[in-house]
Amino acid sequence: MEKQLWDHVQTVRQQSPLVQNITNFVVMNNTANALLAVGASPIMAHGHAELDDMSRICRSLVVNIGTLDDYWVAAMFRAAVLAGEAGKPWVLDPVGAGASGYRDTTLRELLEHRPTVVRGNASEIMALAKANTKATKGVDSTAASSEALDAARSICQRYGSVVCISGAVDVVVGPAQSMYIHNGDPLMTKVTGLGCSATALIGAFIAVVDNRVEAVGAAMALMGVCGELAAAASSGPGSLQVNLLDKLYNITEEEFTTRLRISHEA
Amino acid sequence: MEKQLWDHVQTVRQQSPLVQNITNFVVMNNTANALLAVGASPIMAHGHAELDDMSRICRSLVVNIGTLDDYWVAAMFRAAVLAGEAGKPWVLDPVGAGASGYRDTTLRELLEHRPTVVRGNASEIMALAKANTKATKGVDSTAASSEALDAARSICQRYGSVVCISGAVDVVVGPAQSMYIHNGDPLMTKVTGLGCSATALIGAFIAVVDNRVEAVGAAMALMGVCGELAAAASSGPGSLQVNLLDKLYNITEEEFTTRLRISHEA
Amino acid sequence: MEKQLWDHVQTVRQQSPLVQNITNFVVMNNTANALLAVGASPIMAHGHAELDDMSRICRSLVVNIGTLDDYWVAAMFRAAVLAGEAGKPWVLDPVGAGASGYRDTTLRELLEHRPTVVRGNASEIMALAKANTKATKGVDSTAASSEALDAARSICQRYGSVVCISGAVDVVVGPAQSMYIHNGDPLMTKVTGLGCSATALIGAFIAVVDNRVEAVGAAMALMGVCGELAAAASSGPGSLQVNLLDKLYNITEEEFTTRLRISHEA
Repeated sequence: MEKQLWDHVQTVRQQSPLVQNITNFVVMNNTANALLAVGASPIMAHGHAELDDMSRICRSLVVNIGTLDDYWVAAMFRAAVLAGEAGKPWVLDPVGAGASGYRDTTLRELLEHRPTVVRGNASEIMALAKANTKATKGVDSTAASSEALDAARSICQRYGSVVCISGAVDVVVGPAQSMYIHNGDPLMTKVTGLGCSATALIGAFIAVVDNRVEAVGAAMALMGVCGELAAAASSGPGSLQVNLLDKLYNITEEEFTTRLRISHEA
Repeated sequence: MEKQLWDHVQTVRQQSPLVQNITNFVVMNNTANALLAVGASPIMAHGHAELDDMSRICRSLVVNIGTLDDYWVAAMFRAAVLAGEAGKPWVLDPVGAGASGYRDTTLRELLEHRPTVVRGNASEIMALAKANTKATKGVDSTAASSEALDAARSICQRYGSVVCISGAVDVVVGPAQSMYIHNGDPLMTKVTGLGCSATALIGAFIAVVDNRVEAVGAAMALMGVCGELAAAASSGPGSLQVNLLDKLYNITEEEFTTRLRISHEA
Repeated sequence: MEKQLWDHVQTVRQQSPLVQNITNFVVMNNTANALLAVGASPIMAHGHAELDDMSRICRSLVVNIGTLDDYWVAAMFRAAVLAGEAGKPWVLDPVGAGASGYRDTTLRELLEHRPTVVRGNASEIMALAKANTKATKGVDSTAASSEALDAARSICQRYGSVVCISGAVDVVVGPAQSMYIHNGDPLMTKVTGLGCSATALIGAFIAVVDNRVEAVGAAMALMGVCGELAAAASSGPGSLQVNLLDKLYNITEEEFTTRLRISHEA
């Protein structure tokens, strides 16, 4: 499996897919840079008047609700419809699910458009499963992982989405297959938007890799391995952000396969 | 006092307050990272439909008018009302006060909501005091510090706000107490948004420290001390930004108290 | 010529022009930092209610359509009109020209306001010339440079704009004079928004240098020389971004003139 995941990293570098991002103001720069570093081509476009054209030229779509308002939400819905019509893969990042009714209502409707992949932390995935049953509550940062896993499975079953719960261990839940990735570093939680960057990378990988669980697994593995290599060379979150981009760009097969720790159990 | 200010730094790290930010597009990433680095939890949210929910879960509010337009200004007003109703502390950053009538009109109305703290440079604080008397003029970069101090006192008296004038020396003016902080480095003025980051840190400190002058003093002291330590290790504004985030994250009590230079006179 | 270009770098540092930016969400932080690093003063302002005031106090204008929507486009049109009325220089960055009909329609109208300078990559400049003849097509990343040069000349003739095609070699096309700059590094294409930063620097240089071709040449030369010096010290796009800001800030005359390679032929 390590070899296959590295092959997917290579495929992104070679095919350099154009990825449309409707994402939040906080992380736009970082996610664009993460996409460039792995060899993909990002385009950030939310204007209603160009969504059709963007859908035509992009190979995948990233929707991230981090700083949502009505104009942006309408753009997300339209882009999701277009992706569905074109059979184009897209990934949803439910940032702050459970933190407001507005987020949960928006997410409920986005889920109806059946995202190819959903990636969030345990709290967000659980809130998402609850939003889905219309019993919203606040963000819970002490998510029991078995509860999060149940939430991921229920989203996967109902919408056919591959669901990734990111955390100390990243879990990728597909309809027939799951994958656990034991990489990363706690310092990564001190840099804003690294989860959003992971989601953006998933956008690049699903554009070029048909097996969705492997695509998501490769993106998360790349982020985790590069994150821990970068953290080892950093004295805080500022240098981690810099070193992570460098490593996403220059990581070698040997570094990747040596460090990677995947399993099919937690 | 050095010991008390360090205790406040520790309190932020331990309590990790959730801070809502309605801030400008230029600095969102930096201020989120600054808040994470000191141990707080940032949330950026400006959508009208979720302001009530955000007010319920956040412990303080940061309002920064750097890239204002009508939608964002309406969000700022509503969030300020909600903070007032809930008795929740909030800080106002009057970016570019005096540069346009629109900024001054907006600031006049925001002041009526009695921000807990106002932080700006000398020109901004003077423009704010003038906006308040409806005699606006352009930004004056050669602000006499005694004039700025009078402006700060008049805002403090009229609105009950603690006012921080940041500059070569940071001055914190409260109703009964003032504090001068002689830290920082001139290179900090070559990085965009470090003032905005200081304001965001104030947002974290007023969430958990009752004495407002000490809360603001601790935030500015942390920014100043970390800034000068970071500048000493930097060869320009790019590395300063990186090193500053690292230092905000890893500063020790000894580094802080050794470097800190506070007084009750300029 | 090397000496003249360096003099222009010095002029920006000494006069520190205030530059208004109506630019995209992805690069706002980077372009503000690039402007600060070279000694200019950036202001980001797009609110309709303050465009007149901003035009009064700023010495030049940067318009960048990277993340356009109707509100922002209206701001760009108004700011372009105000610049025209005041005889104030402004630069247009046609990000993603050719990628959507909306971009091309917007650019066609912006061109009618006769930007002082247009800067884009070869694909964008060719799409712009085509948009102008109302025969839009998608982005072409394999632009033949002679075709791009023809496009630049046609825009220059029709609108009087100095046109800069950035790439492995940067070409500056003026009505009577052209300049080729053979600096830069391929790693620069892996950092988002360095083209946008180049455009922002052009905004600073046209504010203080009357000879438009030299102003643009100096900005591109500074970006190219600093970029290659920074790349030589970097292990990837993360550190390049940091090192580039440092170098824009601390470059010396000797470093600049030793590295600079300009010609009047490709």
